Amino acid sequence: MTVNTRRHCPVARGADLVGDRWSLLILRNLILDGPQRFQDLANALEGISPTTLSARLKALQKNQLIKRDIIESHPPRTIYELTEFGETVRPVIRALGQFGGTTPPET
Amino acid sequence: MTVNTRRHCPVARGADLVGDRWSLLILRNLILDGPQRFQDLANALEGISPTTLSARLKALQKNQLIKRDIIESHPPRTIYELTEFGETVRPVIRALGQFGGTTPPET
Repeated sequence: MTVNTRRHCPVARGADLVGDRWSLLILRNLILDGPQRFQDLANALEGISPTTLSARLKALQKNQLIKRDIIESHPPRTIYELTEFGETVRPVIRALGQFGGTTPPET
Repeated sequence: MTVNTRRHCPVARGADLVGDRWSLLILRNLILDGPQRFQDLANALEGISPTTLSARLKALQKNQLIKRDIIESHPPRTIYELTEFGETVRPVIRALGQFGGTTPPET
């Protein structure tokens, strides 16, 4: 049965880690713009609520794709950035952009 | 501002089209197994409800990624398969699988 053979399918695991719109867009922004503050992301991701952004950042941290760092300045700033593992998501974002840049046939 | 420059970002468009776990897994199954009946997909996608599967299939059809065909047999069978545009999602699924097959560092 397909059920069991695909339980540990890498596509499913990838989808579990980054298979939602906001996580993909957060990762896109960290890839394109480098480390970001919470407010940078909140401003850039049109339509995301602070609660949702906070939840997605926590999930991405839990899954070791991003990390939170404190920059020692006055006042100190908290930033989010990709981890080494998070860097491995680049080809997914690239493929998604190439796909999203193609046009479906006119009907 | 990032808000406006990314409104038509191809990554965002890709995420709008396929940026949810079930759509990604439905597309994976159509890519790996070819045309599928509703019940094939329902059996293979562990945990999906018929309502959710139906909604995802409708959205994928609306976005021209898959199409529904009637196979003339006794009784006739309804199958779902990738469109030509749907074929362009292959590299996304491949990249997602490669990413999902990597291991995060031990903590």
